[in-house]
Amino acid sequence: VKRRVIVFGTGLIGTSVALALSGSGAEVELSDRDPQAVRLAAGRGAGTSLAEGPPDRPADIAVLAVPPAAMAETLLGAQKRGLALAYTDVSSVKGRPIAEAAALGCDLSTFVGGHPLSGGERSGPAAARADLFRGRPWVLCPGPETDQAAIGRVRALVRACGALPCLMDAERHDHAVALVSHAPHVVSSAMAARLLHGEHTALGLAGQGLRDVTRIAGGNPALWLEILSANAGPVADVLDEVAADLADTARALRSLGAGVGESAGPVMDVLVRGSAGRDRVPAPPKT
Amino acid sequence: VKRRVIVFGTGLIGTSVALALSGSGAEVELSDRDPQAVRLAAGRGAGTSLAEGPPDRPADIAVLAVPPAAMAETLLGAQKRGLALAYTDVSSVKGRPIAEAAALGCDLSTFVGGHPLSGGERSGPAAARADLFRGRPWVLCPGPETDQAAIGRVRALVRACGALPCLMDAERHDHAVALVSHAPHVVSSAMAARLLHGEHTALGLAGQGLRDVTRIAGGNPALWLEILSANAGPVADVLDEVAADLADTARALRSLGAGVGESAGPVMDVLVRGSAGRDRVPAPPKT
Repeated sequence: VKRRVIVFGTGLIGTSVALALSGSGAEVELSDRDPQAVRLAAGRGAGTSLAEGPPDRPADIAVLAVPPAAMAETLLGAQKRGLALAYTDVSSVKGRPIAEAAALGCDLSTFVGGHPLSGGERSGPAAARADLFRGRPWVLCPGPETDQAAIGRVRALVRACGALPCLMDAERHDHAVALVSHAPHVVSSAMAARLLHGEHTALGLAGQGLRDVTRIAGGNPALWLEILSANAGPVADVLDEVAADLADTARALRSLGAGVGESAGPVMDVLVRGSAGRDRVPAPPKT
Repeated sequence: VKRRVIVFGTGLIGTSVALALSGSGAEVELSDRDPQAVRLAAGRGAGTSLAEGPPDRPADIAVLAVPPAAMAETLLGAQKRGLALAYTDVSSVKGRPIAEAAALGCDLSTFVGGHPLSGGERSGPAAARADLFRGRPWVLCPGPETDQAAIGRVRALVRACGALPCLMDAERHDHAVALVSHAPHVVSSAMAARLLHGEHTALGLAGQGLRDVTRIAGGNPALWLEILSANAGPVADVLDEVAADLADTARALRSLGAGVGESAGPVMDVLVRGSAGRDRVPAPPKT
């Protein structure tokens, strides 16, 4: 029998999941608050519109690709209707949505929190594509209540999307993305914010280095406020450490400039540690 | 008559200048502490080896493409030998080398400080090429003592290299490069330094955003220590401002995380300012 999957939310991620699964032979049903978004995704071959009312039989999995703040409520509604045997989400932060689902009274035995690292910098359903997750990590964060059967179903879905399932507890996941994604975004923003005060001729001297450091600062502020708020503690820890390194470097530079001497140490130190840290960043995937 | 130019220092910048000028029909003589480096550059068609002793007649210009710390002394030696009618350097910081030249007793009437923004991230003479400066800004910082004739000669040299001469006083130049180049390097290093402490699995979740933010942190620490030390005050000012923004954002995130409320303001603020600052970064030159 064909795998049956329901996708809630036909934005970039939801539509890409639906395209990947439809392409692998699954039967996919789509739901979104915006009926036009469902028609658009269906028109691209992502699946068919989810019928109203109670289902004949539950789907294998429901994927909750809705905004993080709407996840717990959507999960509760789907579980009340008995729509699927297992549930997963795609929020880029894991601790808070799982806690919200627990607080709302969702059944966590059939839920496996997920986070596909799509590696894309695009957004919106028009950018959706079946190979968005191919070869990329897709973190799964089962909790102590999660059934093994649910984990198995969600792993199979991740593999069907061409991604690499990576099991991790929610807290460790949130610290990891604070370090490699959320804090770098704020650091890029704080550097780019300085450019508001720069003279036009100064900006004219910019090269590829500045373009690279500030590229992700061009992201959507409202979306990033939501992400950062949901992962506030771990992000704040990294930002405080970066701020302390920058303040120490500034202090050492001022004493160097004043010829006080013996203060090159902290400057050299951050440059050497930065170069070594940079060496740990994985190379881009071959395409 | 052919323009005659002497290039001191046959590294990436010196050899590229020599290749560009030789290509434009000038007669170029090369000098370097390392005779092997001169032979290498000459072998690439950059020019011929500068003869010892007093010249028959002075060259039009001598370009000092030596390390910044050696600039003033090289200038003094060349002026004592009467090697050229005008002199220029290529140091990426301008205030300090000019002050050192003045302190050493160099003749500043024939000297115009220069800084070609080559836009390249490569280094070493093997990467030298005649079109390294094409279409890029090349800052010139004449002082109050500088002769108009010297300025004219150096501007003509910059144009012969295909670059765009951009006159600016030395202090304004140093503030500009602190903002668009030197501080971004330290910010990238401080973010990359955090990755030394990350778990291997965390680094595995990194994407293109982290790669971009940390790319320039991979530069040579000793070279960057020299650059930052020579422009200590202006760089420290920018770093302090970035550190303050990061610390404020961390504080606001912690109170958000604690549900204290009404603290999203500073987080949203840095994201919005960062996005607007990013919009001021010029697009890459079309090639």
